[in-house]
Amino acid sequence: MVRRTGRRPGNPDTREAILAAARAAFAEKGFDGASIRGIATGAGVDPALVHHYFGAKDKLFLAAMNSPMDPLDVIAEAAAGDRSEVGERFVRVFLEIWDGPRGAAGVALLRSVVGTEWTTKLFREFILTQILRRAVPKLGLDEAEGQLRVTLAASQMVGMAMARYVIKVEPLASAPPEVVVAAIGPTVQRYLTDPMPGVFPRR
Amino acid sequence: MVRRTGRRPGNPDTREAILAAARAAFAEKGFDGASIRGIATGAGVDPALVHHYFGAKDKLFLAAMNSPMDPLDVIAEAAAGDRSEVGERFVRVFLEIWDGPRGAAGVALLRSVVGTEWTTKLFREFILTQILRRAVPKLGLDEAEGQLRVTLAASQMVGMAMARYVIKVEPLASAPPEVVVAAIGPTVQRYLTDPMPGVFPRR
Repeated sequence: MVRRTGRRPGNPDTREAILAAARAAFAEKGFDGASIRGIATGAGVDPALVHHYFGAKDKLFLAAMNSPMDPLDVIAEAAAGDRSEVGERFVRVFLEIWDGPRGAAGVALLRSVVGTEWTTKLFREFILTQILRRAVPKLGLDEAEGQLRVTLAASQMVGMAMARYVIKVEPLASAPPEVVVAAIGPTVQRYLTDPMPGVFPRR
Repeated sequence: MVRRTGRRPGNPDTREAILAAARAAFAEKGFDGASIRGIATGAGVDPALVHHYFGAKDKLFLAAMNSPMDPLDVIAEAAAGDRSEVGERFVRVFLEIWDGPRGAAGVALLRSVVGTEWTTKLFREFILTQILRRAVPKLGLDEAEGQLRVTLAASQMVGMAMARYVIKVEPLASAPPEVVVAAIGPTVQRYLTDPMPGVFPRR
């Protein structure tokens, strides 16, 4: 199981002020350009309080996105074990989270993501910095191929989440998790690790 | 090339009134339950005028959804030819539309789809009646397996559209169409036609 991220709850108003300032800063300056100090100033609090409530910048970003999971946990769990089953493990862990109580947060995230250009940009930063940047080394992917491989896998996972949890189109919406793993696992496996003629030059 | 659907433009106010009434009727009663007569009443016009502007009910539904394409045209084009290349053809026709001037309408459709429960329900009807119901016989799929096969393919196409056109995550967003066809075509092919142990019983 992937652990839920989170630290002390703290004062709800202060927390919300920090999260609002964080969303604005990440959307405007990107993940790398935004600073805890600047976010603290935007929220009118001490930087130490931001650290106290949320921890490091990537945890603050996940909280600002209301992410149902830390993608790093999912990637780490998928990466642990036989490389020929990484796709299957990835889909299984993803389904455990989305089929469970945290799925509602995932649906809300997807709904908010496409609402406005602003939130779309925030989600693009999320994929780039929280998924791509971490997944390529963690999964031991080739530098030159890794980015496209991971975005292809992400396209299948985002589409599966849209079809199963947002649009809820049957029979995919009610298919048992093991059926979905057997159907989509090989797709993710191929995108991440298999030779793809026409996509990457043969070596 | 897939032809753009459309008939006479007519009076813009009348057209909009009919489309608004159609959206409400399709969302409330579903595609099968909604009638041209009821929609005409809702818009305060004669049923003959609805036919005159939009043609048959499925054309009116596509117009009400602002669909960038008639899925039947895409399915027909994918179905024509060697069955072992149906996935590749499907992805190629899809990209031709979304990479072209009609792509903006596709992005607007996806954005509106996830906005509210109401529009999500409308899109679910769209997938069920305009894609699933037509694709299974047109592609010569097994009755028992066809629905899940088509929804799996749809999950990949919706996810690809999200990643490439809405979220615009690189390098997928800028990848040449032929690279995307080579990457995603085999996925759609497998979902539509290949044996899938663990998903469908072996025969």
